[in-house]
Amino acid sequence: MKKISESIKDKPWLGWVLYGGTVIVVFIVGLLASTIIERRSESNLIIQNVRPINDWEPRNEVWGENYPREYETYLKTADTTFASEHGGSANIDMLERYPDLVVLWAGYAFSRDYNQSRGHYYAIKDIRKTLRTDVPQPATCWTCKSPDVPRMMQQLGAAQFYKKHWDELGSEIVNPIGCQDCHDPKTMNLRITRPALAEAFQRQGIDITKSTHQEMRSLVCAQCHVEYYFKGKEEKYLTFPWDKGFTVENMEAYYDSVNHVDWVHSLSRTPMLKAQHPDFELFKSGIHSQRGLSCADCHMPYKSEGGIKFTDHHVQSPLNNISNSCQVCHRESENTLRLNVYDRQEKVKQLEKLSTNALVKAHIEAKAAWDKGATEEQMKPILTLIRQAQWRWDFVAASHGGAFHAPLECARILGNSIQKSEDARTLLAGLLSKLGVELPLQIPDVSTKQKAQVYIGLKMDSLYKAKSVFINEVIPKWDKEALERQNKNYGIK
Amino acid sequence: MKKISESIKDKPWLGWVLYGGTVIVVFIVGLLASTIIERRSESNLIIQNVRPINDWEPRNEVWGENYPREYETYLKTADTTFASEHGGSANIDMLERYPDLVVLWAGYAFSRDYNQSRGHYYAIKDIRKTLRTDVPQPATCWTCKSPDVPRMMQQLGAAQFYKKHWDELGSEIVNPIGCQDCHDPKTMNLRITRPALAEAFQRQGIDITKSTHQEMRSLVCAQCHVEYYFKGKEEKYLTFPWDKGFTVENMEAYYDSVNHVDWVHSLSRTPMLKAQHPDFELFKSGIHSQRGLSCADCHMPYKSEGGIKFTDHHVQSPLNNISNSCQVCHRESENTLRLNVYDRQEKVKQLEKLSTNALVKAHIEAKAAWDKGATEEQMKPILTLIRQAQWRWDFVAASHGGAFHAPLECARILGNSIQKSEDARTLLAGLLSKLGVELPLQIPDVSTKQKAQVYIGLKMDSLYKAKSVFINEVIPKWDKEALERQNKNYGIK
Repeated sequence: MKKISESIKDKPWLGWVLYGGTVIVVFIVGLLASTIIERRSESNLIIQNVRPINDWEPRNEVWGENYPREYETYLKTADTTFASEHGGSANIDMLERYPDLVVLWAGYAFSRDYNQSRGHYYAIKDIRKTLRTDVPQPATCWTCKSPDVPRMMQQLGAAQFYKKHWDELGSEIVNPIGCQDCHDPKTMNLRITRPALAEAFQRQGIDITKSTHQEMRSLVCAQCHVEYYFKGKEEKYLTFPWDKGFTVENMEAYYDSVNHVDWVHSLSRTPMLKAQHPDFELFKSGIHSQRGLSCADCHMPYKSEGGIKFTDHHVQSPLNNISNSCQVCHRESENTLRLNVYDRQEKVKQLEKLSTNALVKAHIEAKAAWDKGATEEQMKPILTLIRQAQWRWDFVAASHGGAFHAPLECARILGNSIQKSEDARTLLAGLLSKLGVELPLQIPDVSTKQKAQVYIGLKMDSLYKAKSVFINEVIPKWDKEALERQNKNYGIK
Repeated sequence: MKKISESIKDKPWLGWVLYGGTVIVVFIVGLLASTIIERRSESNLIIQNVRPINDWEPRNEVWGENYPREYETYLKTADTTFASEHGGSANIDMLERYPDLVVLWAGYAFSRDYNQSRGHYYAIKDIRKTLRTDVPQPATCWTCKSPDVPRMMQQLGAAQFYKKHWDELGSEIVNPIGCQDCHDPKTMNLRITRPALAEAFQRQGIDITKSTHQEMRSLVCAQCHVEYYFKGKEEKYLTFPWDKGFTVENMEAYYDSVNHVDWVHSLSRTPMLKAQHPDFELFKSGIHSQRGLSCADCHMPYKSEGGIKFTDHHVQSPLNNISNSCQVCHRESENTLRLNVYDRQEKVKQLEKLSTNALVKAHIEAKAAWDKGATEEQMKPILTLIRQAQWRWDFVAASHGGAFHAPLECARILGNSIQKSEDARTLLAGLLSKLGVELPLQIPDVSTKQKAQVYIGLKMDSLYKAKSVFINEVIPKWDKEALERQNKNYGIK
């Protein structure tokens, strides 16, 4: 047989066909390459054009100049329309909606004021506004609110930071949760800026600096979206109670082992635990985490704009962004997926309600028993049950999205809560009868926030008055000082 | 340019290349076609070779001659090794394992004897053996046990069938659950042979004869794997309580509306409901059903043998067949999937245990209240709560696989059960104190099946003795009669 070259010699048209074909193929490959290069160069442009950002730079708008897409989407967390569509107004007054909460938190600052959390954008506004910070609080309360915190921790050291009073740092901590909380300004890699998380893992022998990028996409959230407490009467050292594990029982065992009490309930005199928001812990026990997803996969999915693929920094409910979150994996319609979530939430909420009801009665019945002269010894097993029941209830109630992240685990926890508070009530019924109280006990009218606050003995008028003074006099002073310091530091006149 | 024919004229070798290429391609296509034809013809062979089967033919082995693959896999339901690997011995004595059940069912035949269900293959053996059929039972109890049932229903009419006594039909109903229960022998299409299912849907305006094949792959199971009761004191008409819906609350509302009472509890005197096995109803509320799966998809997945794809009639736990069931959709490892199931089951079981404990105490405390002279009026709200609590507990406990089919719904139901029985106990504590009973009440030792049965007043010796007589004298007679009738009917000598 002849070689191709010889064939071409014989038939010159064959050469032209090969030549033409090559031209077309090369042209198409060139087009593709050009698109790729264009995208690359646009990305490079971004990286090349950045101006260096100082380490511990707290001002989000400064970072925003380098990373406009991330910053613009971050700014959208100011929009709380979605929350208002799904449950009334944004920044909802939870005590007004669920007056039982006032009773459950009697004696604790949460009974004064507890609003639905808003976006990261409002972190500073909301902590200044809440009545909970009128109680003398340590600076530890600032820890999750601002990228000024790691800056101050660099200056003071974490332990010294925690030891300060909350209002000592009022003019230092002014920028809401933002870029520097999660990013290293040099590389833009994800970075842990709060010591408590790293310390908690370290105590378990885990070095989280060795985490993968995908793990970091949850761990930066877990700096704050976790259960925690302030360790030490003076130290107020932010500590995660994970030494015995991540379940509600594990953490209770930890708290019991260190005799931790958040407050003594003013009605039942129970030494209580207040759950914070164990979002990361509950998420870890759910199927999405078990399948390898991170927080960012659903709350900050990737987005494309022009030639750029970037992480959407509009941190929000995936229900407001189903097509970019759920539907990346699930092929069902938006409506089906939404109903699937609601279905889980409703079932968990039903148990949460049963749990709340039982706890309210238990606290009030315990108060009646004390009032009739019950002894410490008689009350002890009852108060233990109330402490355990409310810890379980709060673990679910305080979590953000727990009813979706781990619905079955939430239901399990609430089932246990119900059992424990009702068991306390059984003991109380026996005791109250013995003490000559006619059963069922008349439960006072706590059907509105106002009535409930009066019942537990709060003088709301004077609290509101003091707050008003604080907002009108102290806050403007803080802001002025902060601005002056910033102008001085950065040479702005 | 020249045409190809001219090119070939110029260069004869080109023709050989084309010729050779064609030969190879045709050969390969031929191979593929031959495989396909072979498979088809094998399938046709099966269909052509079948001998007609009489309608209502109850003998599985007769169907098995036409459909050996399905029959052979069906026969594997005799093998209960898997069950024995996952929880002790097959046909486990549940009362021995959970003596609390004896107390919960005091006054009802279940307190005598309740074994873990075995495969369909054992349906006749097990119903003859249980002590529950020594209580005079209607023939309705046979309904789900045998393909002889639709045969008898054709002869007698369903209403007349149900009205008979259980032992009147002992020599008629002898073949265990099998082919004819679900298949039409002419077309082998799936077919509903039990009227209760069709009637229940009909009352809701749904004609299930219009169901799709995929729906039928669940509906044939739903003929039996459902909640049901025997309607009418004389009629004992098998009825599904679905008129108000499929949830535990819907069915309770139905039962309450017709004042249905399964039995009066011999300790607490509660007018009880006994849940059967609401497997289909719980499955419907779970995600696998919501995503369009049928019972058969996981319990009878497709299988290939030689050239034939057929439905595996070895009905079994998908956990024993993960690669052919779960892994058709889920890409995780067998071990991961198995642990995911266990995780759900353990959480539900934990609540089930709390629910059981509370109910045992409630029954015993109610008995104490009666013993001390409590009045009907005092007891009424308590007994209502006990009825509701145990109905919820039993709905989950009696279901097969509910903890996997619908784990969250099971947890929700159990949470409600716990709340209700503990609420009953709170009322009881008040009442008992009033009646002068020292609390906490001493709970009798019911830690073994034997102790529990003695406590509720069962005379097991005489029950076992009567059963032994029945097994040695009545059963052989039934079998002899059945054989004689069959030989006569089918001309076998």
